[in-house]
Amino acid sequence: MLNLFAEAGKLKKLPRMGWLLRGVQSPESVAEHTFRVAFITLFLGDELRKRGMEINVEKALKIAILHDLAEARITDLPLEAQKYVDKKKAERKAMVDILGAERVEYFKLFQEYEEEKSPEGRLVKFADKLEMVLQAWEYEKAGSKGLEEFWEALEYLKKSEFYPYFKELVDELERLR
Amino acid sequence: MLNLFAEAGKLKKLPRMGWLLRGVQSPESVAEHTFRVAFITLFLGDELRKRGMEINVEKALKIAILHDLAEARITDLPLEAQKYVDKKKAERKAMVDILGAERVEYFKLFQEYEEEKSPEGRLVKFADKLEMVLQAWEYEKAGSKGLEEFWEALEYLKKSEFYPYFKELVDELERLR
Amino acid sequence: MLNLFAEAGKLKKLPRMGWLLRGVQSPESVAEHTFRVAFITLFLGDELRKRGMEINVEKALKIAILHDLAEARITDLPLEAQKYVDKKKAERKAMVDILGAERVEYFKLFQEYEEEKSPEGRLVKFADKLEMVLQAWEYEKAGSKGLEEFWEALEYLKKSEFYPYFKELVDELERLR
Amino acid sequence: MLNLFAEAGKLKKLPRMGWLLRGVQSPESVAEHTFRVAFITLFLGDELRKRGMEINVEKALKIAILHDLAEARITDLPLEAQKYVDKKKAERKAMVDILGAERVEYFKLFQEYEEEKSPEGRLVKFADKLEMVLQAWEYEKAGSKGLEEFWEALEYLKKSEFYPYFKELVDELERLR
Amino acid sequence: MLNLFAEAGKLKKLPRMGWLLRGVQSPESVAEHTFRVAFITLFLGDELRKRGMEINVEKALKIAILHDLAEARITDLPLEAQKYVDKKKAERKAMVDILGAERVEYFKLFQEYEEEKSPEGRLVKFADKLEMVLQAWEYEKAGSKGLEEFWEALEYLKKSEFYPYFKELVDELERLR
Amino acid sequence: MLNLFAEAGKLKKLPRMGWLLRGVQSPESVAEHTFRVAFITLFLGDELRKRGMEINVEKALKIAILHDLAEARITDLPLEAQKYVDKKKAERKAMVDILGAERVEYFKLFQEYEEEKSPEGRLVKFADKLEMVLQAWEYEKAGSKGLEEFWEALEYLKKSEFYPYFKELVDELERLR
Repeated sequence: MLNLFAEAGKLKKLPRMGWLLRGVQSPESVAEHTFRVAFITLFLGDELRKRGMEINVEKALKIAILHDLAEARITDLPLEAQKYVDKKKAERKAMVDILGAERVEYFKLFQEYEEEKSPEGRLVKFADKLEMVLQAWEYEKAGSKGLEEFWEALEYLKKSEFYPYFKELVDELERLR
Repeated sequence: MLNLFAEAGKLKKLPRMGWLLRGVQSPESVAEHTFRVAFITLFLGDELRKRGMEINVEKALKIAILHDLAEARITDLPLEAQKYVDKKKAERKAMVDILGAERVEYFKLFQEYEEEKSPEGRLVKFADKLEMVLQAWEYEKAGSKGLEEFWEALEYLKKSEFYPYFKELVDELERLR
Repeated sequence: MLNLFAEAGKLKKLPRMGWLLRGVQSPESVAEHTFRVAFITLFLGDELRKRGMEINVEKALKIAILHDLAEARITDLPLEAQKYVDKKKAERKAMVDILGAERVEYFKLFQEYEEEKSPEGRLVKFADKLEMVLQAWEYEKAGSKGLEEFWEALEYLKKSEFYPYFKELVDELERLR
Repeated sequence: MLNLFAEAGKLKKLPRMGWLLRGVQSPESVAEHTFRVAFITLFLGDELRKRGMEINVEKALKIAILHDLAEARITDLPLEAQKYVDKKKAERKAMVDILGAERVEYFKLFQEYEEEKSPEGRLVKFADKLEMVLQAWEYEKAGSKGLEEFWEALEYLKKSEFYPYFKELVDELERLR
Repeated sequence: MLNLFAEAGKLKKLPRMGWLLRGVQSPESVAEHTFRVAFITLFLGDELRKRGMEINVEKALKIAILHDLAEARITDLPLEAQKYVDKKKAERKAMVDILGAERVEYFKLFQEYEEEKSPEGRLVKFADKLEMVLQAWEYEKAGSKGLEEFWEALEYLKKSEFYPYFKELVDELERLR
Repeated sequence: MLNLFAEAGKLKKLPRMGWLLRGVQSPESVAEHTFRVAFITLFLGDELRKRGMEINVEKALKIAILHDLAEARITDLPLEAQKYVDKKKAERKAMVDILGAERVEYFKLFQEYEEEKSPEGRLVKFADKLEMVLQAWEYEKAGSKGLEEFWEALEYLKKSEFYPYFKELVDELERLR
């Protein structure tokens, strides 16, 4: 299990490449991003449950914590790289190797995220985008420029099944800009 | 809720002071530490449940994600500062302010961690120490020196109620040294 | 005495938290701030003396060099932390420990600063604020944003007994904005 | 042509992932590595020519300058990633896109490097490995640890057709260890 | 020869002082700058040759790779320092020492650059200025401010003998501003 | 006077080149070094006075604060650069420009340091060397290597007129190694 925890530790060292390539100096790591995705998932998940949606918060949290683990092996490939590399396929293979045969259940959780095939998987995707837009705003507030394209994720958020529940939140974020 | 997510974002900026004061250059952030504590909690929690212990993994994950949130307000006070500042009291007050009156349930989770009064709270404490020792080893492996005192947390791990379940893991960590 | 010099060395490692929390990447250290406070004190002190004010420049310089030494133990607590922590009390206790019983005279100098009870103590406070506003401007000039609140220290400067002597300087700083 | 120069500029931002993942703090960029590969190629190439080998130094220098350009699009994939991603294929496609249809001649130079099919291509590969081992030694000399595997490239150097010409150089490097 | 390669390695560590003094955090190194100067020289040189100018591209590339090597000994003295230090003289002496008596030919290449006495030397000077302006623009695009003076190099570019060949490129750069 | 304070601010940005060139990542700035030189001067100066030596502590502190100010213009030229550049002459000219004609008294203080012609000037030189050796030790304690040559300053300390007063301190430092 120590090896597995060491793999997770690599995410502390990996810069989020999108920011780096747009000139953000010492940008956040994948681990930092993942932390806030899990944090957001926690509060959104509980809120959905309170509002009567059937959602497994434990599962959602696990997905959030694991959702970028494959990057321990393949690093955070920026969008422009994905034209040349089959990122999904690479991530899937990397997850299998990292988790090992005896932890198939976690691989399934990862797939729910990647293929957006369960409400929990989609919720983490929603949290992932929300986290990124919030981070873009925080960098801009501190003086960074040239991060326009990251705001496009707002469109994803607005089309999501969760938007009706978190309209206020998303709209507030949009107004910040 | 956006304010709450922004508070969590501060943990990305806060260096873990213990490493910084011992000369680790650009050490991990509080957010990075928290990420791996949650990661470890996930796997330890599931393992305990498999072995028949009654443990609420959802609760444990929430505690892990929240356990250092107060540092968004009071920063990561190093051990040497705690002689001069009542850190526990400060954290409790900060948590109340960050979470707001309407989120009392999360404050209770935080207390379970801080006072080690539930198995889930103690499990996160165990994961917190384990994460720190692993990080010390990773820094040492890369060339850092002067981190001896962080290894003392091994004693905590060995006295824990969870040690019998994770003896192999803890002993492997100890041997790495 | 080597221990004392090592304590001072910690100030090189400690980031000024106010900047860090507002997104300034790799902000100045407490030691860097202290250096310029002492530098400013030197020139303001000599100027005051030339203009006929009775001011002990040696004492003022010592106060400047020592004024943030307690942070070697309690770190640079940002303004938002001071709601939860009694910073003054903590600093006083830390100073006693750092200096040791045999150096009471330096503790008294620190108190003159903290309680603003001598002209020299107040001059260093004036230099401390001036340094901070100047640094805010330098960060802004280089592209940082979101540092508005630091400019509020201008009000302190304008109400100071030293303002009549350094009106030109303070007004020039204000116009830079 | 400005776009092309901007692509090259991305190499300044990209950390060499191998070092990063082994804990080197703020490691060299791809651009820094490329600079020294070109530098080494210059002196090795001229030396070979002096010793009577038929080598096109202009071509070798161009290959050196271009050899990692594809990373502007796909980043510096570490060795462990290459199990999951077809790096060669990705690089080839990225080079075509970066250079554009009108610069086929440079793509051919890149292929000579990648497939080691000309003496110039192989010389740059030799310089590339030499540079990496030298960098490993420089990091170790400054305190880094855990870089053993990078020294394995010495085997490549010793098997190379250029080894007889630069035996002294390679052996000196090996002795440094 | 290993010593020579180690000297080149120092350029990776040396920050470009002009950016640093204007508040760019962790600015590019001399090695990173040199890389892109060589890159630009490659494409401009080939283009000139295609257009019928007699230009020795091999020589130009060598000059580009070597043009800042003296900084391994004297560091990147910013413009403001050159009022107090005879940089040209210092660089010449440092180059002699770094290259050694047996490599006089390379010292001559350096002189062609420094005294702008061959087309190849002047081309690298042109590439050097172009690279700097492009970098200024890239920093500004990412949020940096206060870099106005670096744009003055555009005047140099426009007066150059190469401007008629690269008018479009230079004008495009100017319009970016 | 604001210009003068801005000049001092540049010392925050300037890395101490000796460490940088030996591979210390993000080494201390000139301002950080200056801070501790002033700190050390304070305590050594008072101690000397207590022991009956006639020493002007105010003057000593001023010299300490000003001793590296010229580097705001010429940067921190490492030892290896001083073979190619007349650092003393450059610093003197830079100091004249920074201070301006109306502040000749401070230039004289600087000269006392540089030419070691007053006890106060020599005390700051002593503190300057002591600070550097202590810093070398602190870097080594944290894992840095290759800093042997900095320890040679111990010889200077032992030959100093102040050594009999601070024998214990210097010897303790030497034993740390």
